[in-house]
Amino acid sequence: VNISSLSADAVELGKYRHYMQKEIFEQPQALANTLEPIAGAGAISPQIFGAEAVDVLKATRRVLILACGTSYHSGFTARYWLESVAKIPCTVEIASEYRYRESVPESDTLVVVISQSGETADTLAALKHAKSLGMTKTLAICNVPESAIVRESALRFITRAGPEIGVASTKAFTTQLAALALLTLALAKINGRLSAEQEAGYLTQMRHLPVAVGKVLELEPEIEKWAQRFAGKHHALFLGRGSHWPIAMEGALKLKEISYIHAESYAAGELKHGPLALVDKEMPVIAVAPADELLEKLKSNLQEVRARGGELYVFADAGSEIAESEGVHILHMPEHYGMLSPILHVIPLQLLSYHAALVKGTDVDKPRNLAKSVTVE
Amino acid sequence: VNISSLSADAVELGKYRHYMQKEIFEQPQALANTLEPIAGAGAISPQIFGAEAVDVLKATRRVLILACGTSYHSGFTARYWLESVAKIPCTVEIASEYRYRESVPESDTLVVVISQSGETADTLAALKHAKSLGMTKTLAICNVPESAIVRESALRFITRAGPEIGVASTKAFTTQLAALALLTLALAKINGRLSAEQEAGYLTQMRHLPVAVGKVLELEPEIEKWAQRFAGKHHALFLGRGSHWPIAMEGALKLKEISYIHAESYAAGELKHGPLALVDKEMPVIAVAPADELLEKLKSNLQEVRARGGELYVFADAGSEIAESEGVHILHMPEHYGMLSPILHVIPLQLLSYHAALVKGTDVDKPRNLAKSVTVE
Repeated sequence: VNISSLSADAVELGKYRHYMQKEIFEQPQALANTLEPIAGAGAISPQIFGAEAVDVLKATRRVLILACGTSYHSGFTARYWLESVAKIPCTVEIASEYRYRESVPESDTLVVVISQSGETADTLAALKHAKSLGMTKTLAICNVPESAIVRESALRFITRAGPEIGVASTKAFTTQLAALALLTLALAKINGRLSAEQEAGYLTQMRHLPVAVGKVLELEPEIEKWAQRFAGKHHALFLGRGSHWPIAMEGALKLKEISYIHAESYAAGELKHGPLALVDKEMPVIAVAPADELLEKLKSNLQEVRARGGELYVFADAGSEIAESEGVHILHMPEHYGMLSPILHVIPLQLLSYHAALVKGTDVDKPRNLAKSVTVE
Repeated sequence: VNISSLSADAVELGKYRHYMQKEIFEQPQALANTLEPIAGAGAISPQIFGAEAVDVLKATRRVLILACGTSYHSGFTARYWLESVAKIPCTVEIASEYRYRESVPESDTLVVVISQSGETADTLAALKHAKSLGMTKTLAICNVPESAIVRESALRFITRAGPEIGVASTKAFTTQLAALALLTLALAKINGRLSAEQEAGYLTQMRHLPVAVGKVLELEPEIEKWAQRFAGKHHALFLGRGSHWPIAMEGALKLKEISYIHAESYAAGELKHGPLALVDKEMPVIAVAPADELLEKLKSNLQEVRARGGELYVFADAGSEIAESEGVHILHMPEHYGMLSPILHVIPLQLLSYHAALVKGTDVDKPRNLAKSVTVE
């Protein structure tokens, strides 16, 4: 007999209309809980990934991330972090593809599997497949400590998002990102890629993250207004560049899952290689536009969209000089957040899909055709 | 002064209504011309990639493919070939992403750039970026011998597709795949992964390819009928698994480009992790279903679609036991073609998008918003 350890608090709606909304607003607390291992620490310790972590991470020359759905998007974001900050080559692959293809195993690779439930059938099978090929360095990033994926992995990091009831994942995603940021920093440090000053800077930023997310959540009323205009659309394009491309992917997936709007994401630079043909006034285009070094490039992509009559909804950072005009709507985030910016930028996309679904009247917490944990192939 | 070497023959439409249709039907000849280097040969010679190819390919431990749009899809297909047949780890990346992110260069990596025109700005910049990081092993796969990308690369393979005038690429794509199949075999051979018997088998299959493609083209009348049913739709999902997932991507891109139908592709195993929420009777689902070891898995994905009311259009191989029924339409390809099957399976998808665009009355050869060669960022 399994006794559930869910407390009544965790599963009651309180002031929220849906679990999804509740879980979106729980993200500051979920992140604070997940980042608890570094709360009082003056340094990143590899041991937060398990007792053997120092040896395993020291011997790690590359990273292979295997996941499905939303967890795949957190892994894809981490690829940008791992290569730029830790200087470790990283590949991210859909678990259902990896498990059935002939790949080339490499023993100095850390295999990272990501799953909220830890029971995702494809991810578990991909992990077992990697192990059967002789890849023994394995790490599970998971929200359920006693799950199959955690039991099968040498190392583990348990996100402390608390129970996630809405089928569309929100707080599990951002806490996975927090875990992957910690992994990036641990690998960077162990490989001598992180100065004491940089380490202190990242730690400060991570400890401040729950507050920063809280500020983003205050944008809800503005996003609700955008959602009103959105809900009648049948299509949407989500654009991003660099580490915010996977955030655009996640935004599109959320809108698909709960509002049934056919949203698709593209790396903004790919727009002119095909999908621009779709753009007309019926195709709203959502852009994730942090104030990073790619902003000028993104702006020129957005001009292409505008020139074809597409209506733009831009999530910019404070101080970004993108002008509001006819057909160009700008929402400014409270601040630019450096490496961790993807964690902030996904929040308004979660809220947008939630409120679009509300307007459409769909069953937000239990969207049609989908299950919470996909424990079958 | 540049004197064009295009002959009058190559640019006249003849019996075809559009260049795209003409170019689809030129594929047997384009493939025969591209495969001419192995026509009389009893063995794969690495020298078809350039004089220095033996040394470069011998020193190659991994492959990084950089490309945009349709060329990215040919590279993605090759990843499956390179890892399963040549046992060389391969990464494929969107050129506009690679050029602007901090990656980890590795000197034993062969950088493969793919572009029809050889002037694609993002791909050229990605190649230069890789070289600036010290990656000197470079190979261009290109349709234009005197182009910038060819001049910038150490090795080259010129596809002999002839001039491609339709904006939506067709014969450039299949000849790129032929070039990448040759690269796979050359790397497999040089690394001792190819027995003489296997080599002979692959060579026979490649020489027979133009005839095999010709047989697939005979399916046009049936596909035309499907296109009639399709043209009124606003959405479509394209599903594939393994090396046919990128073929599903290419099919979706073609439909987007010239018929302006919002088509999106998914690895079939990902369907249940989100996009299944979109499926209803207004969302036709196209499945690329070769008779390989993944067919049974794909069939169960298709049952999920059917159970949600989605109408299925399945491109199966001869002998595949998938039953036609209410809402399940099957088109049988003439034969299963092993490793090279993706080259055959893209042909009906090209024809489907062409005929859907005809029904819709779009400007097939010059779709809105798009340029043939994207020579700007």
